[in-house]
Amino acid sequence: MNTFGNIFKLTSFGESHGQAVGGVIDGCPPGIELDTGFIQNELDRRRPGQSSITTLRKEEDKVSFLSGVFEGKTTGTPIAFTVTNKDQNSSDYDNLKDVYRPSHADYTFEQKYGVRDYRGGGRSSARETIARVVAGAIAKLILKKLSIKIVAYTSQVGSIALDNDYSKYDFLQIEETPVRCPDGEKAKEMIQLIEEVKADGDTIGGVVTCIVKGVPVGLGEPVFSKLHAALGAAMLSINAAKGFEYGQGFNVDIRGSEANDIFYNDNGVIKTQTNNSGGIQGGISNGQDIYFRVAFKPVSTILKQQMTVDKKGVETTIEAKGRHDPCVLPRAVPIVEAMAALTILDYYLLSQTTVLL
Amino acid sequence: MNTFGNIFKLTSFGESHGQAVGGVIDGCPPGIELDTGFIQNELDRRRPGQSSITTLRKEEDKVSFLSGVFEGKTTGTPIAFTVTNKDQNSSDYDNLKDVYRPSHADYTFEQKYGVRDYRGGGRSSARETIARVVAGAIAKLILKKLSIKIVAYTSQVGSIALDNDYSKYDFLQIEETPVRCPDGEKAKEMIQLIEEVKADGDTIGGVVTCIVKGVPVGLGEPVFSKLHAALGAAMLSINAAKGFEYGQGFNVDIRGSEANDIFYNDNGVIKTQTNNSGGIQGGISNGQDIYFRVAFKPVSTILKQQMTVDKKGVETTIEAKGRHDPCVLPRAVPIVEAMAALTILDYYLLSQTTVLL
Amino acid sequence: MNTFGNIFKLTSFGESHGQAVGGVIDGCPPGIELDTGFIQNELDRRRPGQSSITTLRKEEDKVSFLSGVFEGKTTGTPIAFTVTNKDQNSSDYDNLKDVYRPSHADYTFEQKYGVRDYRGGGRSSARETIARVVAGAIAKLILKKLSIKIVAYTSQVGSIALDNDYSKYDFLQIEETPVRCPDGEKAKEMIQLIEEVKADGDTIGGVVTCIVKGVPVGLGEPVFSKLHAALGAAMLSINAAKGFEYGQGFNVDIRGSEANDIFYNDNGVIKTQTNNSGGIQGGISNGQDIYFRVAFKPVSTILKQQMTVDKKGVETTIEAKGRHDPCVLPRAVPIVEAMAALTILDYYLLSQTTVLL
Amino acid sequence: MNTFGNIFKLTSFGESHGQAVGGVIDGCPPGIELDTGFIQNELDRRRPGQSSITTLRKEEDKVSFLSGVFEGKTTGTPIAFTVTNKDQNSSDYDNLKDVYRPSHADYTFEQKYGVRDYRGGGRSSARETIARVVAGAIAKLILKKLSIKIVAYTSQVGSIALDNDYSKYDFLQIEETPVRCPDGEKAKEMIQLIEEVKADGDTIGGVVTCIVKGVPVGLGEPVFSKLHAALGAAMLSINAAKGFEYGQGFNVDIRGSEANDIFYNDNGVIKTQTNNSGGIQGGISNGQDIYFRVAFKPVSTILKQQMTVDKKGVETTIEAKGRHDPCVLPRAVPIVEAMAALTILDYYLLSQTTVLL
Repeated sequence: MNTFGNIFKLTSFGESHGQAVGGVIDGCPPGIELDTGFIQNELDRRRPGQSSITTLRKEEDKVSFLSGVFEGKTTGTPIAFTVTNKDQNSSDYDNLKDVYRPSHADYTFEQKYGVRDYRGGGRSSARETIARVVAGAIAKLILKKLSIKIVAYTSQVGSIALDNDYSKYDFLQIEETPVRCPDGEKAKEMIQLIEEVKADGDTIGGVVTCIVKGVPVGLGEPVFSKLHAALGAAMLSINAAKGFEYGQGFNVDIRGSEANDIFYNDNGVIKTQTNNSGGIQGGISNGQDIYFRVAFKPVSTILKQQMTVDKKGVETTIEAKGRHDPCVLPRAVPIVEAMAALTILDYYLLSQTTVLL
Repeated sequence: MNTFGNIFKLTSFGESHGQAVGGVIDGCPPGIELDTGFIQNELDRRRPGQSSITTLRKEEDKVSFLSGVFEGKTTGTPIAFTVTNKDQNSSDYDNLKDVYRPSHADYTFEQKYGVRDYRGGGRSSARETIARVVAGAIAKLILKKLSIKIVAYTSQVGSIALDNDYSKYDFLQIEETPVRCPDGEKAKEMIQLIEEVKADGDTIGGVVTCIVKGVPVGLGEPVFSKLHAALGAAMLSINAAKGFEYGQGFNVDIRGSEANDIFYNDNGVIKTQTNNSGGIQGGISNGQDIYFRVAFKPVSTILKQQMTVDKKGVETTIEAKGRHDPCVLPRAVPIVEAMAALTILDYYLLSQTTVLL
Repeated sequence: MNTFGNIFKLTSFGESHGQAVGGVIDGCPPGIELDTGFIQNELDRRRPGQSSITTLRKEEDKVSFLSGVFEGKTTGTPIAFTVTNKDQNSSDYDNLKDVYRPSHADYTFEQKYGVRDYRGGGRSSARETIARVVAGAIAKLILKKLSIKIVAYTSQVGSIALDNDYSKYDFLQIEETPVRCPDGEKAKEMIQLIEEVKADGDTIGGVVTCIVKGVPVGLGEPVFSKLHAALGAAMLSINAAKGFEYGQGFNVDIRGSEANDIFYNDNGVIKTQTNNSGGIQGGISNGQDIYFRVAFKPVSTILKQQMTVDKKGVETTIEAKGRHDPCVLPRAVPIVEAMAALTILDYYLLSQTTVLL
Repeated sequence: MNTFGNIFKLTSFGESHGQAVGGVIDGCPPGIELDTGFIQNELDRRRPGQSSITTLRKEEDKVSFLSGVFEGKTTGTPIAFTVTNKDQNSSDYDNLKDVYRPSHADYTFEQKYGVRDYRGGGRSSARETIARVVAGAIAKLILKKLSIKIVAYTSQVGSIALDNDYSKYDFLQIEETPVRCPDGEKAKEMIQLIEEVKADGDTIGGVVTCIVKGVPVGLGEPVFSKLHAALGAAMLSINAAKGFEYGQGFNVDIRGSEANDIFYNDNGVIKTQTNNSGGIQGGISNGQDIYFRVAFKPVSTILKQQMTVDKKGVETTIEAKGRHDPCVLPRAVPIVEAMAALTILDYYLLSQTTVLL
């Protein structure tokens, strides 16, 4: 259950304070040039300590490839990779050994497995997403060859939300601010809010919007494996994700006559006048932009005293030490992109099995 | 890609106007009494023609079991079942043979497969959900033995939304109205709105809320197969679904200190004071109620003239004939329940493989 | 666990004396003309009662298709099919209700599931192979378009074995004898042996040889999913199969210098001078003929009194009634072909995912 | 396609002359003490250079665990492990860059992927089996707790075959000879034969016999996933394997009345008087010993000149350098055991999903 994908498959491993986190990619097409600079850059986008609004935990997060690459190119065999855990202040977590942090995985994990690596959240730590970002970066390299492009940004933090839809923004602005929001004014407000929340020892939630451009018509399956269902599962598997919507989403106060996307012929290409479908109709991509939104809750680790229980069921208090993100949004952006890349590439490869003889 | 589940697996088959729709359930525990009355009753809840606010298409929808049952009990072998298609006004669809209905699967399906059964939506018809409801009913019979209970209701139609959370309603009222809403006053408003929309030849969207009670601690996997990711994929695979959220969901303007669910000891049972987690922490059930919401778009088939293109790319107009639902919500309720039942049972059986030696 | 295949997937269902046996094929390419005459002919090759050396049970075994076919062609959606059970002398099996037949699945099945449909072997009956033959016939129709041809024959019954390898026989002779052996003289001996064994109320084992011609280079995966491992699993899943070998097989008293297949260039096509590899090298097809042999035990049901135990563990005797095959070989031939067809087609479709960008 | 298993899953990675080989085990039960001494000992049994009749390639083959273990015990999360490649005389293989070795995977691999790591066989090298032996060792540790024991030995080399069935040998003698044969006299003959073959620059095939004791009744599935089909696929996935048989296997010249295993009651336990079934009936274990045989071809790499073709299709000669096994049998024994352990444990865990409510 630690494998994602049908054809392009990522098996993820590793705990927050173990020796390493990493993954194995199976089903990667051969002959792809492994642009390690690009991959490391993607990792750097998710790295802790990159700005004042992320955790101060400092990890170099250098990726090593152990297999599946020969003379700089993929060979079609499994690509194993590792990122060593270095800045491990495990002692920060000694006080958590016997206590369950509220709204964390501590209690449920221990009940399920009878044991847990309590250091830094162990397997349930967001550090696991390193594997996703590395694999997602490789997927992006392949999607680039297919002219498919994925971009995500922070569209809401707390009550501060962007006013316009994605088409109104310049995506080149996204990486210009530490909060990864293409609207400069809103970005400032978001950063200020996050800093206030942080100063208060508290945390705050938000929303990431993601757009996939250039997807050919025909990805996705009509029934259980609808493309948006696969994207939804991918996004909801990210730590702290609480909701997913695509196209018109939860905007349900709309009539069919308004919502329907009218087809027209644009010089031989079938397009739609609007895109309430979010680029997916009947579970299958229709060639228009795919877009969706992912809701993230506030980080559960706060620097305030909270009530809880310990392993013996005795009520006690807890107060987090350690270095934590006041808001996951900035670092969630590259993870959302990575999971989108893994899903879209997987469904592209899957679509190759629908052979028209 | 027409199979749902890891251990308790439903393979679904059938087109809207083919000979039959049905499914095969693999991995069903043996020795379960097959209460055919209950199963048929669940099918009747999803059946067309059940009230003035659903389509008039009249299908008896009687289920036949072909295998996997002996002397009234399941045997552990595959349970195949069929529901014959009877009221097939296929001629209603002759005008759709060469034209793509806006926001339907017509265009994408034909591009993907090079061919499509255009009658009534073919494989992309919601008639496919019959297989889900039958399998979900069997899952419910098993969950009942495990003291797990699933209930869903319509919580929003257009702008008419329930004011309170699920704990404030009497679930016994749900089936008392054709719109399946436990708030009698709101139900009346919803019905009135649907009738207005219908009279106008139009359609309207809404939201279903679902609650699962009695889930033991420990279902779900920490990384990709988080329980809410599985539920999300299940719900998003339902026709017309556009969004999924659980627990606090898209309500992201909240601080960690407010959102965190404080553990306490209730006479030896660990519970949480609030339930913003929606019964799932770190992807694993925590023993509290699981609840989530699913957004549904307005039905794409409207009885108004719309612009579109035909197979040759020529722009043309289309006007639906046939009998269609003005709002999927009432009939979506049992389907949401069925998919929840399939998911929860599947993860229950999967959890049996985490053997503590 | 009742599904076979990765991309072209058969889910099989049904018990010997239930309402029907059948299957669902998922992943079938669209646009394939469904030659029902050919499919029925394949079923007739496996049908009981076809000759004096098979069981007298008379089943018409007419296949009905419920879905996945439109205007005579496959649509890419699941193809469900059923074959009704008709000649059910279930009362023949009343004496087996509480007794375990030696070397049958009765005891193990009941221990595993706590219950069993004892009539005619239930799910463990070779009647289940109907689903395989139907799906295999459809696979053959597709393989024909790919110029891949599969043929099998009986190469041994008891001590009577063919003297030569497959290249020495005229495959057109196979169906000329009820034992499906291309060597007319040996066929007569085999038939005589089977009739002797039958007259004695006993049964006898044998071997089927299968050849696949025209497989392109590149099917199969280098590690766990070697093509011969997939073929082996397929063959060993057939009732009464006890062994599988390909290429030189169990002929291990051979030196590498003799066994190695020397490559040469035949007018631009790389071929091998010998074919001890059986057409598969490193788990991947090399373009030469694939050939393998499958061992079948004597049918366990004999018309002689045997000692056994009943459900309570009390020792007792049993004597089969009913109509049974004295030798599975003749009817095993089309089943071996069907499983080979399913495997080869599945791996062909799987190979489409190794995209060379 | 580099993952083995349904519940206890091994994903294998690595090339012969890459940085490392290794694997990720998913689905391992938590709380298992990781006896690293035992695991290393199993690796040492498969290590090259262990005796005069194996390759001289000297690899230390020390395994490192990267995740899934905490305070010496498994945690239920993925166990990643690596073995670094050290003694890499890659230059030995420079002459193979453009030439296809007869009966190796060189040609098929390159045709499939368009590229290959030609050093030492790359992914198709038997060095990949390190991952299997490590994972198999962990599986054995768990099976030990379930009182299931697996043992294998060399039962044939060339024409020298053991005369008796497994019950006649003292398994403690197996590891006493470098050829891993429990019959001291035969072992000497085998070793002499291997040394002769080696001196001649040639190689020779053989057979491994494997026995699994203590398997509970009920493992295996009735149709496609018969326990012996799973074991067969596992064994046939080992490099150089050419055949698999269990129970009476290819001994088909036998009557049903002789072959059937008569049940009897041994003080409350149902046993069989003979065991031609090989411990599996109808695909499901019956509680008796499981035993099977695996045929291995002679190693394809020989130190003699052979004809072949190069990448351009030009006919040429090849003569292997490097250090190679003259016979895989001694080192195949622990690999057969490992694959048996993986299969039996996987089916044990799978059987936990057949819940009897």
